[in-house]
Amino acid sequence: MTPQAREAILAADRVVGYLTYLDLIADLIADKEKVGTAMMQEVDRCQQAVDLAIEGHEVVVISSGDSGIYGMAGLVMELANKVPAEQRPQVDIVPGLSAVNVAAAVLGAPLMHDFAVISLSDLMTPWDLIKKRADLSAEGDMVIALYNPRSKKRVTHLDEVRELVLKHRDPKTPVGIVQKAGRPGQHMVISDLENFTKEEIDMQTLVIIGNSQTYVENGRMITPRGYKL
Amino acid sequence: MTPQAREAILAADRVVGYLTYLDLIADLIADKEKVGTAMMQEVDRCQQAVDLAIEGHEVVVISSGDSGIYGMAGLVMELANKVPAEQRPQVDIVPGLSAVNVAAAVLGAPLMHDFAVISLSDLMTPWDLIKKRADLSAEGDMVIALYNPRSKKRVTHLDEVRELVLKHRDPKTPVGIVQKAGRPGQHMVISDLENFTKEEIDMQTLVIIGNSQTYVENGRMITPRGYKL
Repeated sequence: MTPQAREAILAADRVVGYLTYLDLIADLIADKEKVGTAMMQEVDRCQQAVDLAIEGHEVVVISSGDSGIYGMAGLVMELANKVPAEQRPQVDIVPGLSAVNVAAAVLGAPLMHDFAVISLSDLMTPWDLIKKRADLSAEGDMVIALYNPRSKKRVTHLDEVRELVLKHRDPKTPVGIVQKAGRPGQHMVISDLENFTKEEIDMQTLVIIGNSQTYVENGRMITPRGYKL
Repeated sequence: MTPQAREAILAADRVVGYLTYLDLIADLIADKEKVGTAMMQEVDRCQQAVDLAIEGHEVVVISSGDSGIYGMAGLVMELANKVPAEQRPQVDIVPGLSAVNVAAAVLGAPLMHDFAVISLSDLMTPWDLIKKRADLSAEGDMVIALYNPRSKKRVTHLDEVRELVLKHRDPKTPVGIVQKAGRPGQHMVISDLENFTKEEIDMQTLVIIGNSQTYVENGRMITPRGYKL
């Protein structure tokens, strides 16, 4: 957590967030009024935050990782924009470390070159569009970071992506898998394109598929930038 | 700067980095021995860091943004891996906020959906490959973040990328431009695909080209995640 995020939380008198995330910062918000909601209630949660701000409260919405990367930043702004100008609360976005930043550091240096960030969640995005993006990113030899790679209901999507990438890339291409990046229980495995879907992978996992230059040495994954050594 | 980065710097007895970056943290490293080098001497600089570590020093290499995204993480690891196992220093990567994280927050919420991160620097990457990546990312309707968009020597590359993206995307697509994201002198402009290359853009600028759903409201750029509101 950056000092800026910490200051924003400390300055607020109302803290809104998914209960699991509020638990992660329980000490920091012990004396504040909290509005915790269950998973999947993103719209309700952010609407409550906007309503509290209209009432005059200093509200902070907690988002895991970077609120600006698949986080709550957009939803809060969309809802705030629906409020008439004279009542509309000001929204400030505090950047943070997203799973891709943290997982890359855990794996070594896989993001020294161009990369694509793709979420495999098809709740709000057509699966065909997600597949198209994975295919084109693989064709362009970009490193590929996959958010939400597999859920309990969505068990075959990751294998479909693996097949698409295999059309363009060597089966031995390194693939890094990080669970709970930067949180208690963090776990890291480096596998390869042929085999990585056999690893334990869930919604709290970030997967990084290397490009054609990525290699593994001394247990770390490196995508060289291209310096002559 | 995260608390983890600060701790790593305070724990070190040697600080190695590009002089401009050392100046940004002058207060923090006032009492430490510094090895500052000029721009473009990345290999020399990281080799000095590895050599100092072999001598037994606790060394920290300063990288701007996130050392793991186009930063010094890879080069340090590559050089450390050349050292025989019995002498090889341990390398830990401390993640940070990259320009893409900070610029997104400044602009609003442009990265709520899949995106590509591409550097337009062709010093170590063939220009044709960079163009191919920009073209494929545009075809996949991904938001596109451009690092190193324009330098004094490289003045036409950004216009070439603009032409490629225009083949796939509306001329009115929002484009966000952030100079010196998160640093003194930060400056933000929101333009569109047709016109954005006329703005002041240099090596310290990050450019974010929206996807087909990105819009501007109340002066901020939003790529909706897809929630029904």
